[in-house]
Amino acid sequence: MSVTVTAPDGVPEIRAGDDLAAALLTALGPGDLADGDVLVVTSKVVSKAEGRVVDGDREAWIDAETARLVALRGPTRIVRNRLGLTMAAAGVDASNVAQGSVVLLPLDPDASARRLRAAVAERRGVNVGVVVTDTAGRAWREGQTDIAIGAAGLAVLESFAGRVDAHGNELAVTAPAVADEIASAVELAQGKLGARPCAVLRGRADLVLPPGDDGPGAGALIRADGADLFGYGAREAVIQAVAARPAARTPFGSPVDAGDFVAALARAGIAARAAAPADVRTGRERRAAADIVAFAHGWESAETGDADTDLRFRPVTP
Amino acid sequence: MSVTVTAPDGVPEIRAGDDLAAALLTALGPGDLADGDVLVVTSKVVSKAEGRVVDGDREAWIDAETARLVALRGPTRIVRNRLGLTMAAAGVDASNVAQGSVVLLPLDPDASARRLRAAVAERRGVNVGVVVTDTAGRAWREGQTDIAIGAAGLAVLESFAGRVDAHGNELAVTAPAVADEIASAVELAQGKLGARPCAVLRGRADLVLPPGDDGPGAGALIRADGADLFGYGAREAVIQAVAARPAARTPFGSPVDAGDFVAALARAGIAARAAAPADVRTGRERRAAADIVAFAHGWESAETGDADTDLRFRPVTP
Repeated sequence: MSVTVTAPDGVPEIRAGDDLAAALLTALGPGDLADGDVLVVTSKVVSKAEGRVVDGDREAWIDAETARLVALRGPTRIVRNRLGLTMAAAGVDASNVAQGSVVLLPLDPDASARRLRAAVAERRGVNVGVVVTDTAGRAWREGQTDIAIGAAGLAVLESFAGRVDAHGNELAVTAPAVADEIASAVELAQGKLGARPCAVLRGRADLVLPPGDDGPGAGALIRADGADLFGYGAREAVIQAVAARPAARTPFGSPVDAGDFVAALARAGIAARAAAPADVRTGRERRAAADIVAFAHGWESAETGDADTDLRFRPVTP
Repeated sequence: MSVTVTAPDGVPEIRAGDDLAAALLTALGPGDLADGDVLVVTSKVVSKAEGRVVDGDREAWIDAETARLVALRGPTRIVRNRLGLTMAAAGVDASNVAQGSVVLLPLDPDASARRLRAAVAERRGVNVGVVVTDTAGRAWREGQTDIAIGAAGLAVLESFAGRVDAHGNELAVTAPAVADEIASAVELAQGKLGARPCAVLRGRADLVLPPGDDGPGAGALIRADGADLFGYGAREAVIQAVAARPAARTPFGSPVDAGDFVAALARAGIAARAAAPADVRTGRERRAAADIVAFAHGWESAETGDADTDLRFRPVTP
């Protein structure tokens, strides 16, 4: 069995308002797109065509695209963005675009994929699946792979639930994320220098849905918030757990000699709130909560004479 | 630019001691393997050839293959295994093998890949890269993709560090994990039913290293323990933070009316240790620590008359 990925050269630089389908179809010759193919395009050019290139402060745009913080370390800010995607910098990118500009992800990448599929059907008369890709890091592995952030007319998860192998075992792996595998396969032919923003994958017509059925889209690949065991970085999880308790609001009810620590909390979006008196039971309880928050940030509390009035912190010594 | 994946039919069932290279080369015709190709093979058949099919209790084998627990929910146990891979069930699998047996991952998949590369060079006279794959879930996305757990003669990470795009921007994505993308691409042609355990990827000869240079192997794709923001599930991170504090050893110093909660802790590898008196400062402090551990497991402490002697828990009411 064979699968082929072909990424044409010659797609022009795309600008806001351009007819993206026309630009891609010009680069793809008549034989390059057939029934059952999957047309894959980077979110970058979709965003450019849809006018999602913006000027201004990158950090402010990351804020705007962020639903909530997931993890923070050094300059790396991993967030769950408004699409539900967990990505560094919310998917806001400053490569392959004019200097000083940044590219935001498409407003609705599944809708972008549906529009592209419809345009291909109308202009070429072929039934294809469409995938819109972006590049993402992984929790436990170095480097990045391309994933599907939009899809139309494609079975994004291949279901083996209930299927048995030749030995009669029910298959433990029940759902290969084929849309993500397609995105990764295509990246191998596209490269990262922006010159080949689209590709055609041929050989898995079984995954392409009939005309009129756009399928669930790539949104179906996003694990629901709350169903996720890794919804927070390890440190941020500790902060969340503490922040959920009233006592957690108390560490900064008394003088704190830890400017760096407070700044770290502020960067993490955890405000150093003054405690209401009712939240404070005993100095020791407050210190216990403060210790755990501090531990999550690589600090520990220093013993002082009066736990009620004097909380001090120092970096954890290994 | 084109990349092609071809997965031959006709690889026989592999048994312990079989000459895997011979079996694969028989299925691959003379033109199917050329200089610059990447030969990709599932860890399943590598393990079978290397005698890593074992009988006995699957859970006990998962224990044996586990370096440490990462996250636990319901029947799903995600661990960092002895290879450093973060995977459900430590990569121990019971599919595509005789019922009652389980397949362990190869002892050293990078070494397996190197042996296969050497055998191909010797018997076919061609210089290929080799990837050994397995199937893994992801932190934030539904479904599974194939990843590279072994590699030889391949640049596993393509480095763009310092490269600039056509606009003069330094590329933010500095290292596509091409070995993982190759594994994913190949899965599309192999399928999950075990009949096509190998495939050849053609078109990225630039990633294949010269004869004699096996490269860093797929081990280079594993993020170092400790460099990882997601080394624990959110709940387990809280447990770890609390367990690092002396006070955390105290929650079970007094009677606990929460069998399910204690059992959950035990399954997570957190023993319900009796506290040494010196660890206990006040009942309220103990309760504060216990509350946070409990919160991490979806429990909360119920208010009782005497915090010093009577800690009770109930499931958190949403």
